[in-house]
Amino acid sequence: MRVTQEQIQNHNESVAGSHERVFSALAEQIGGQGKDVKKMISQIAAFQVAVPSWALGAGGTRFGRFSIGGEPGTLEEKIEDVGLLHALNRSSGAISLHIPWDIPEDTAAIRRLADEHGLVFDAMNSNTFQDQTGQNCSYKFGSLSHTDAAVRKQAIEHNIEVIRYGEALGSKALTVWLADGSDFPGQQNLRKALGRTRESLEQIYEELPADWRILIEYKPYEPNFYSMVIPDWGTSFLLASKLGEKASTLVDLGHHLPNTNIEQIVATLMMENKLGGFHFNDSKYGDDDLTTGSVKPFQLFLIFNELIEGFKNTIETLTADVAWMIDASHNVKDPLEDLLQSVEAIKTAFAKALLVDRTKLTEAQETNDPALAQEVLQDAFQTDVRPLLREARIQSKGAANPIHLYRDLQVREQLIKERGTQTVATGL
Amino acid sequence: MRVTQEQIQNHNESVAGSHERVFSALAEQIGGQGKDVKKMISQIAAFQVAVPSWALGAGGTRFGRFSIGGEPGTLEEKIEDVGLLHALNRSSGAISLHIPWDIPEDTAAIRRLADEHGLVFDAMNSNTFQDQTGQNCSYKFGSLSHTDAAVRKQAIEHNIEVIRYGEALGSKALTVWLADGSDFPGQQNLRKALGRTRESLEQIYEELPADWRILIEYKPYEPNFYSMVIPDWGTSFLLASKLGEKASTLVDLGHHLPNTNIEQIVATLMMENKLGGFHFNDSKYGDDDLTTGSVKPFQLFLIFNELIEGFKNTIETLTADVAWMIDASHNVKDPLEDLLQSVEAIKTAFAKALLVDRTKLTEAQETNDPALAQEVLQDAFQTDVRPLLREARIQSKGAANPIHLYRDLQVREQLIKERGTQTVATGL
Amino acid sequence: MRVTQEQIQNHNESVAGSHERVFSALAEQIGGQGKDVKKMISQIAAFQVAVPSWALGAGGTRFGRFSIGGEPGTLEEKIEDVGLLHALNRSSGAISLHIPWDIPEDTAAIRRLADEHGLVFDAMNSNTFQDQTGQNCSYKFGSLSHTDAAVRKQAIEHNIEVIRYGEALGSKALTVWLADGSDFPGQQNLRKALGRTRESLEQIYEELPADWRILIEYKPYEPNFYSMVIPDWGTSFLLASKLGEKASTLVDLGHHLPNTNIEQIVATLMMENKLGGFHFNDSKYGDDDLTTGSVKPFQLFLIFNELIEGFKNTIETLTADVAWMIDASHNVKDPLEDLLQSVEAIKTAFAKALLVDRTKLTEAQETNDPALAQEVLQDAFQTDVRPLLREARIQSKGAANPIHLYRDLQVREQLIKERGTQTVATGL
Amino acid sequence: MRVTQEQIQNHNESVAGSHERVFSALAEQIGGQGKDVKKMISQIAAFQVAVPSWALGAGGTRFGRFSIGGEPGTLEEKIEDVGLLHALNRSSGAISLHIPWDIPEDTAAIRRLADEHGLVFDAMNSNTFQDQTGQNCSYKFGSLSHTDAAVRKQAIEHNIEVIRYGEALGSKALTVWLADGSDFPGQQNLRKALGRTRESLEQIYEELPADWRILIEYKPYEPNFYSMVIPDWGTSFLLASKLGEKASTLVDLGHHLPNTNIEQIVATLMMENKLGGFHFNDSKYGDDDLTTGSVKPFQLFLIFNELIEGFKNTIETLTADVAWMIDASHNVKDPLEDLLQSVEAIKTAFAKALLVDRTKLTEAQETNDPALAQEVLQDAFQTDVRPLLREARIQSKGAANPIHLYRDLQVREQLIKERGTQTVATGL
Repeated sequence: MRVTQEQIQNHNESVAGSHERVFSALAEQIGGQGKDVKKMISQIAAFQVAVPSWALGAGGTRFGRFSIGGEPGTLEEKIEDVGLLHALNRSSGAISLHIPWDIPEDTAAIRRLADEHGLVFDAMNSNTFQDQTGQNCSYKFGSLSHTDAAVRKQAIEHNIEVIRYGEALGSKALTVWLADGSDFPGQQNLRKALGRTRESLEQIYEELPADWRILIEYKPYEPNFYSMVIPDWGTSFLLASKLGEKASTLVDLGHHLPNTNIEQIVATLMMENKLGGFHFNDSKYGDDDLTTGSVKPFQLFLIFNELIEGFKNTIETLTADVAWMIDASHNVKDPLEDLLQSVEAIKTAFAKALLVDRTKLTEAQETNDPALAQEVLQDAFQTDVRPLLREARIQSKGAANPIHLYRDLQVREQLIKERGTQTVATGL
Repeated sequence: MRVTQEQIQNHNESVAGSHERVFSALAEQIGGQGKDVKKMISQIAAFQVAVPSWALGAGGTRFGRFSIGGEPGTLEEKIEDVGLLHALNRSSGAISLHIPWDIPEDTAAIRRLADEHGLVFDAMNSNTFQDQTGQNCSYKFGSLSHTDAAVRKQAIEHNIEVIRYGEALGSKALTVWLADGSDFPGQQNLRKALGRTRESLEQIYEELPADWRILIEYKPYEPNFYSMVIPDWGTSFLLASKLGEKASTLVDLGHHLPNTNIEQIVATLMMENKLGGFHFNDSKYGDDDLTTGSVKPFQLFLIFNELIEGFKNTIETLTADVAWMIDASHNVKDPLEDLLQSVEAIKTAFAKALLVDRTKLTEAQETNDPALAQEVLQDAFQTDVRPLLREARIQSKGAANPIHLYRDLQVREQLIKERGTQTVATGL
Repeated sequence: MRVTQEQIQNHNESVAGSHERVFSALAEQIGGQGKDVKKMISQIAAFQVAVPSWALGAGGTRFGRFSIGGEPGTLEEKIEDVGLLHALNRSSGAISLHIPWDIPEDTAAIRRLADEHGLVFDAMNSNTFQDQTGQNCSYKFGSLSHTDAAVRKQAIEHNIEVIRYGEALGSKALTVWLADGSDFPGQQNLRKALGRTRESLEQIYEELPADWRILIEYKPYEPNFYSMVIPDWGTSFLLASKLGEKASTLVDLGHHLPNTNIEQIVATLMMENKLGGFHFNDSKYGDDDLTTGSVKPFQLFLIFNELIEGFKNTIETLTADVAWMIDASHNVKDPLEDLLQSVEAIKTAFAKALLVDRTKLTEAQETNDPALAQEVLQDAFQTDVRPLLREARIQSKGAANPIHLYRDLQVREQLIKERGTQTVATGL
Repeated sequence: MRVTQEQIQNHNESVAGSHERVFSALAEQIGGQGKDVKKMISQIAAFQVAVPSWALGAGGTRFGRFSIGGEPGTLEEKIEDVGLLHALNRSSGAISLHIPWDIPEDTAAIRRLADEHGLVFDAMNSNTFQDQTGQNCSYKFGSLSHTDAAVRKQAIEHNIEVIRYGEALGSKALTVWLADGSDFPGQQNLRKALGRTRESLEQIYEELPADWRILIEYKPYEPNFYSMVIPDWGTSFLLASKLGEKASTLVDLGHHLPNTNIEQIVATLMMENKLGGFHFNDSKYGDDDLTTGSVKPFQLFLIFNELIEGFKNTIETLTADVAWMIDASHNVKDPLEDLLQSVEAIKTAFAKALLVDRTKLTEAQETNDPALAQEVLQDAFQTDVRPLLREARIQSKGAANPIHLYRDLQVREQLIKERGTQTVATGL
């Protein structure tokens, strides 16, 4: 199913009056504070967040999974779904694939299809945490860190295969998330496991095309519950430093111990030129994979505040420098609605961070005036930036209010009609 | 030092034009959503948050304390400081005293002074976590839970004495925060310690005047680091249930284990008619005692969302039913600025919660539509309610922007001139 | 497959010499401290821990599952597996069933089979967190707390059905673990959901036979990641109190927020006569479901220290008063080995707690001497009690070293031969 | 006060019989497992843990402090107290000083005094988290990371002064713990603060004598509650790597977020040759500074398991390679008893780790047999090694049971008689 420009046009016209009223009031307000509203809108419009192919179906937990209906069963259908999101919000112009769930049979055709929808291929994801039918070695006890060289070889070759698929599709990055680790004290020789991981990554790194990057994700626990081979940013950074310039760290917001100051990690990585990308989601307890911004919107704003600060001379190239991806799992929401809400929350945080009066913030910092610093941040955070996002979407020919239109058009009902209630998208 | 109505008037006039512009735009917007703006403003204006006497000086940590200068050295000066805050924001019309730090010598004179500043006396606080000079028994190993009956008797009598002071001042509640607990496994018989605490509280309860309430605070750790006698809401609730109708639970936002869903505790306590009051503050790690709303403003909004939901028929009587107090410790900010920021954040959360479309939220809940529920909450949370708070303050003869005026009037500098740089307010 | 008494006998004879040497040295040592070694051994021998039917196959995570081979495919095979464990350790004389995974077709035959293995049926477990094929209503948005009365009715009837199966098998308790909750702020009306849960439980309670108990489990998160309807002991206690005497709280060691003092919860529940039972496991991060005692053996000891303290006049009736069950999920170990290790760790903690010098501990507590209290606890904890457990097993006709014998007999290889590599036990 | 060899001798003779019985039984048992008992005892005897000068008086919390009486008031008295500990346990042969609390007036005399007690000077500690009377600049807003170059200069010079004192005393290391950080989002430019810290450390590093090391401590929060400049091992490692070979990371067990796998950090640092030393203590919630081993003895064992594994060829040089220090704060115990218990727990963990059958553990790891790995670790952990420690102490002319003798000799009462009840040791 596709959303037509006419449908979007009609929707936008229906809200044009009220939008223009609140938008111009806001534009006047923040323009009065010296902000270049036009530039902000173009920055907001340019900001794109990749959608992972595995977030298009209902997610589950180890206790069960409840199907949503109309889930995409093929790579083509996944691209259609992301295309649909992008048509609505003009902010999801990239898809992140997962091998072997998304092996393209005819890469040229797949690229054409993506192109039709205005989509590019973001970072490719390998999978060495599950056994596939017919696989020689099992990943039960690890992959790149495994004690058995044959398992490591299989995992290395899989990653190289993923790079090859990515090259054919025009992707420029490989994301490696390792589930490797141990469930019990003593199960694994911690140092040797890390050493083997490093050697395996070096072999993958050697196969990386010149213009590619490798993003190394970290996670403190799950699916291993005593140790993970790459548990924290420090270990990822250590590995990325040893690998070389094309290697950097990927920050998944849900992959931290309780109370971690994530924005400080982001700042430190930027300082060391090793911030490779993000997996956006939100969480209250662990890797809960909830809608981005649904639980801790202020933390998200603080992360973007560090990003804007770190990149401040080059906001325009933000999209190129860092991989922006969602990584969530939608257990109880319609996945497409969830993704629309995630993208909206990410861009809200981005827009609010753009609003921060950096001159005044720097002044507060230099004079050690925390009360003033708080006033400056709150001035931005409390501002209602939804009219800016709406304006950016309208100018980009997206829908003023994507979720309203999605519901008005009964997209899910259409997808169920097309695909049935029993399809299950590959994923978690 | 006092802020005059003329100073406030001048300040308000200077921002009148810009305020009216944004306020009327906002009023139109939310009025268009069916909200009674006038009523909201009167509800916001009526909402008062008590200031604790011990938050008026610089706080410290076990590693040290850095004086701010101009700190109030007497009860009279503390009342003046709260009076000053209240003159500025018209939202801090109550002071919460702490005995023995604030023993009034002439209660009549103290009441008159408070009255002059438009202040009433909120819940009284006892202190059995420190030894005072000349005290017979030591609280080193507990107070109401102590193994020695003599120590318990001293602590019980102290609490009764606090009630007597409170009666003289017109207070209507006693807050009991117990530091009692143990630092090491085995140090304390956990059941007996809880039993003794219950018996001690019963004796205090018997002395409670008919129109008084006793608020039982809980805390999982600090200053004891293995167990606290009242570690969680369940234990406080258990004790309050056994004591009787005048006893209820006090929720200090910083007194929870990592990741606790505080708003759910609030909802459950309301359901059982045992929500007695709040100690507002914010924190990232433990009982950090930071400015309310500075770290988790969305959580604060969700707490108020539950409060409004629970009390929805009686928002007008909210102030009477529940004790609203700040409990924070200002290590690096000017305490008065910090308190202004805390009150602002609390009322911001309150106003946003008032904005929630309850009909639509109920509909989303009844139809199990979490994406819609999120839209409803975000519609309220993203709205910039600062113009509403400003309008409520202006109508109440407070300052449009309290912190700006506070700085323009150089209040701290005046206080230092009056009181010197070396005064140390009693407190932590 | 069964282990014969002869095999056990042979095994025990092979270690008899070395065992007797270390056992008599230990017996002399603790006998010299005034302990009645013979009584301790009979208490240790009498202590039985129920094995859950769902822990006999390989567990998994949401990221995947790796089969172990030889897993039991039927209820009969599950009983055989527990029987095998019990033959080895003489400490697992009960099985806890889960409906609908273990619906007995011929209850009389099942009872006979269990009886043959020396097993009784411990608490029955209902399942309203997954949808079964052919079920009318979905539990996607809850069961006993659901907004829709039809769903609640289905869940209530399921629980009553579980009671009926349990009656037929001679069980005496129903464990209710509710996965109900919400993933997003606003999704659920927290108070109404708790109210509906209470009403549903009341209907189940009414159907409880006179000599039955209902155990109400709590859990802070997972599979819902914003709120759980029964998140903590306080809420479970609240419900159990309202239901009546037959209702009490079940403590699953893995169902707590970080840093919770679980032994204090145990002490408080005992004091209020509401400690119903345990689900034993271990964890480092969340509900990791690892082998009991593999991560926090000292915490386990402290829990048993409270149990012995609370029950000190009636250690003999411990088994009758409280339900002792394992609830774990074995992702990387042979489940039977894992269960043997869990039971060993539980009984180790029990034996060490029996060793605590209670007179001296009480003295340390009454005189507020934490250093002495620590010496007393460490004296017990540091003692190597393995010879006591071995002796108790040998006297009960179990194996001196169950895991050694299990491996020597190549039990898993036998089970795989009998049942194949592809069987999948029902469970998580 | 000093403990005489005669007093120790008498004490040891009184327990000689019972000790020899249990020791020889244990020696036979572990000797039978192929362990070289004699070598183990000499390794245990050689292992020394430094005592910090600030742990000799009662600690406190921000809520208060309760004096213990007889606290050392001068550096000389502190050395005497450590000398007393060392006489008793023969395992505390080093003292770690803190400047400015312990500025030696006559370094030669101080060295002689220490030498008399058999003590050497371990790592020196600087203090830039408190303001000292007469200090030019305040550390309220940081020291090495401060925005103001004058404050940084003062802090750098202080650290260099500490090195000079240390040189005079024969110390070989400087420990830098920075309290620098921020309490509120936005207060500090996170990247610039880290950059300034690095530059300041570089200046200190330049002044480090050739045979000295600088140990960089990390801590996630407290006394700053939003960010710390060096919050985690990754940041410490980053700084240590940039500084050079003489810089490494110091691990304080209490300085981690909830659920951190500390032993994995230790393993990674060893692998990178950047493990500089330890601050031992224990905790349940945060930096609780409790007696080492009183809360998580198994974690302590796992840490030593990694250490022995990492250093396995050179256990004899362990003491030289890594700085072993206690860092605790004794709120409710007699500090000297607490230190005796801490040292005992540390050496218990060390001895148990020595007992681990490394060949079998390696085999379990190489064959991915987590159940076997657990058996191997538990075999060591469950063994009662107290007789080994006792034997090592007796052979070294220490007391068989230091705490018993300490109490029998009424040391604290003597110290109070000598020093009075009102002395306050400098410290926290």
